[in-house]
Amino acid sequence: MSLTIKSHFASPTYLSFTTKPSRFTGYNTKIRPNSIYHFNPLKLTYYQPKKMQAPVQYSPAPVIKSSLIEPDGGALVDLVVPEGERGAKTIEAESLPKVRLTKIDVEWVHVISEGWANPLKGFMREDEYLQSLHFNSLRLKDGSIVNMSLPIVLAIDDETKERIGSSSHVGLAGPDGDLIAILRSIEIYKHNIEERIARTWGTTAPGLPYVEEVIIPAGNCLIGGDLEVLKPVKYNDGLDHYRLSPKQLRKEFDRRNADAVFAFQLRNPVHNGHALLMNDTRRRLLEMGFKNPILLLHPLGGFTKADDVPLDVRMEQHSKVLEDGVLDPETTIVAIFPSPMHYAGPTEVQWHAKARINAGANFYIVGRDPAGMGHPTEKRDLYDPDHGKKVLSMAPGLEKLNILPFRVAAYDIVAKKMAFFDPSRAKDFLFISGTKMRTYARTGENPPDGFMCPGGWEVLVKYYESLQAEEATQQPAAVSS
Amino acid sequence: MSLTIKSHFASPTYLSFTTKPSRFTGYNTKIRPNSIYHFNPLKLTYYQPKKMQAPVQYSPAPVIKSSLIEPDGGALVDLVVPEGERGAKTIEAESLPKVRLTKIDVEWVHVISEGWANPLKGFMREDEYLQSLHFNSLRLKDGSIVNMSLPIVLAIDDETKERIGSSSHVGLAGPDGDLIAILRSIEIYKHNIEERIARTWGTTAPGLPYVEEVIIPAGNCLIGGDLEVLKPVKYNDGLDHYRLSPKQLRKEFDRRNADAVFAFQLRNPVHNGHALLMNDTRRRLLEMGFKNPILLLHPLGGFTKADDVPLDVRMEQHSKVLEDGVLDPETTIVAIFPSPMHYAGPTEVQWHAKARINAGANFYIVGRDPAGMGHPTEKRDLYDPDHGKKVLSMAPGLEKLNILPFRVAAYDIVAKKMAFFDPSRAKDFLFISGTKMRTYARTGENPPDGFMCPGGWEVLVKYYESLQAEEATQQPAAVSS
Repeated sequence: MSLTIKSHFASPTYLSFTTKPSRFTGYNTKIRPNSIYHFNPLKLTYYQPKKMQAPVQYSPAPVIKSSLIEPDGGALVDLVVPEGERGAKTIEAESLPKVRLTKIDVEWVHVISEGWANPLKGFMREDEYLQSLHFNSLRLKDGSIVNMSLPIVLAIDDETKERIGSSSHVGLAGPDGDLIAILRSIEIYKHNIEERIARTWGTTAPGLPYVEEVIIPAGNCLIGGDLEVLKPVKYNDGLDHYRLSPKQLRKEFDRRNADAVFAFQLRNPVHNGHALLMNDTRRRLLEMGFKNPILLLHPLGGFTKADDVPLDVRMEQHSKVLEDGVLDPETTIVAIFPSPMHYAGPTEVQWHAKARINAGANFYIVGRDPAGMGHPTEKRDLYDPDHGKKVLSMAPGLEKLNILPFRVAAYDIVAKKMAFFDPSRAKDFLFISGTKMRTYARTGENPPDGFMCPGGWEVLVKYYESLQAEEATQQPAAVSS
Repeated sequence: MSLTIKSHFASPTYLSFTTKPSRFTGYNTKIRPNSIYHFNPLKLTYYQPKKMQAPVQYSPAPVIKSSLIEPDGGALVDLVVPEGERGAKTIEAESLPKVRLTKIDVEWVHVISEGWANPLKGFMREDEYLQSLHFNSLRLKDGSIVNMSLPIVLAIDDETKERIGSSSHVGLAGPDGDLIAILRSIEIYKHNIEERIARTWGTTAPGLPYVEEVIIPAGNCLIGGDLEVLKPVKYNDGLDHYRLSPKQLRKEFDRRNADAVFAFQLRNPVHNGHALLMNDTRRRLLEMGFKNPILLLHPLGGFTKADDVPLDVRMEQHSKVLEDGVLDPETTIVAIFPSPMHYAGPTEVQWHAKARINAGANFYIVGRDPAGMGHPTEKRDLYDPDHGKKVLSMAPGLEKLNILPFRVAAYDIVAKKMAFFDPSRAKDFLFISGTKMRTYARTGENPPDGFMCPGGWEVLVKYYESLQAEEATQQPAAVSS
């Protein structure tokens, strides 16, 4: 349940995020209209519920629980079986035909079970799959539209299909054979692999990480149905306490009395350019009249490509950034987003944004080439670096989200700090790519002063040193084999 | 302007088109709900305007012109310059930088200028292009959604871009250099060719007809803007009288007092299976209570692949079908749909349906594998033959259209006529493919009795004979060269 107050901006209300603070002089400041980026009526708290001594039975009005943005499609799904039913459901699952999941399938079970893909209740059936593939959105029964840009599907091979036979339900077993979930009222349909790849990535070139890892080895059929997850998905990697569900995040935002939540998706270490942007966003939200904007620093925790920095290292690096005071722990929540990464650019950034709506974020920060990568076979970016934010700003079902595009930050060699790139003095800026950063870390060279907080940088140096040590021990073995 | 009367069907109102007439016993018949195919409130005439002697200036209510379904986005665009302004606009066009169009570009100018792509007013700018590519739809300023599944774009090369420089408008010249139109307030942006192909066709395999003909040879940039067409596009091929604009079609439907218009898109000769289906549709619409359903038999007239039957032959064949009484001329309008063909299956069928809304059709017939073809490099259909009707039935912006899916018709060797395929006696049915039909015609063999009316078949035999004669004269030349 949320309450909406129309903001005081002149209509049409658009926000253009620039680096000129003079534009933002207060709550009633004039916002420059912009044809691409939309800015929607803000969700403000005007009523903070007090702890009630007893439920007010006679009240005709519903109790206002939160001012956070509503999840897509209404209430958050929670597909984990209540503890009391776990035993019986497990016995039932054991009696059903089994589908063996991969590690990445389990990540999707996790994602669906907690409502990141709200209102999806399981792996997609064909109707949902086709809508996602062709329209990047789903039409709900009431006629409303939610965004759904990535097919969230489960592939099976012909042998498994045969084994399932005419059963209406199947048990889902993890990579180690442990029963994880039941998939109910299943529908098995054709996995049009080439078409899925082409429509999701806009290319069929070989070398797309998720395609190579997940789709090429997958079976010819997809199986959809409703999920019942036997117990919450845990990874036991020392990071589970960072894996807050949308429900837990919403509770935490409420506990901190957040009146705006701005999400920052990342899969890389946080440098001071990122920090500049996040802090700048908070400052502006305050200037716009919000009393307590909370940052959701939300690293992606599922599958990533081999040369990305691993999750545990990133989490340690992010901790240092907060310890070093680059970001304020009082107004920042660090949590893991359990989704696997597709590297599908404009298609995937919609998923990244949509999932954060479900976690309560009403502002989403988007930069250059979100979820992009180099073309796997050509010397160019796979996507136009501006398409991500353009597509995101026009995406069906994301109208209620405030999209905050930002200009690229780079190292200003005059000011000796990370700053928003100013094309009028381009030569003063140094772009430090991932490859460049890795070279610094590997050679033990320090990046320019002010690029990253020392604590965070140290984490990366240690990681790359360990990688080199590992490579060094592996190399002779490879030669001698 | 249209008037809507809710039909008397129980909600939810779905139509399942089967071959069992017993299901349809009258206007209040019970319609079987079906999760895929939607059936929407029907637009019925309850007021027929009379010719007015003088405009009624004081009338507060708008004049009801028609009960036909409204064009997408409101009024039909008409981008042809009024005759009185033609001279001045032509002089202006001559002074502008020129873009030279291909034959197929001109077909698109034709399509846009008459409102088939309503509310599009010109070649797409980047915002429209990205929405079409990613969402198969456009969001209008009022927040409403119209379907727009194919990018309708104009490509230019780098040299042309340079020549245009900073000009805001350009003149569009036809293949022969004659000035055709002005494109105003232009926007030039990157033509992401690979991504466009992948997202539109769901494959990047070589050999897609439109891709080879249009996209591969096209330039690296796209140019969008508002069209002003200097005079109506004509082809002078003896078929222009068949090229009725959406406005002309609407006028004709009104003149015939149509209370339902059902469109049949095709790019092949009409055999008795098609006719069975069209006649069956009319019968059912009558049973549902419509008094005068009119069939729009609407062959596609733009670019088609080399082995499709050419337009002039098809039009002659269609005429014979009406002459031979297979379709009733009283309740049928034959006209040419000027769009080029993409062969993009589920993506393109949306375009085919959407364009017919603009021409006034509120029922759209869809069969197996619409706008499909064989995979260019693999031995299979490019698309799942059922995806076309499924995608069409869920497509954003087409909710107001009644989609009529139909079962495949084949030659029933027992009944000796074309009939809806009955899987329970599959062995009694003969599928006569395009290739098979061609073989019949080439070898002078007659197809089974009742496959096609004799007059129509004769047209095809003559065509294939002329083709063989042509090939025979060409072959020696090719060998001797």
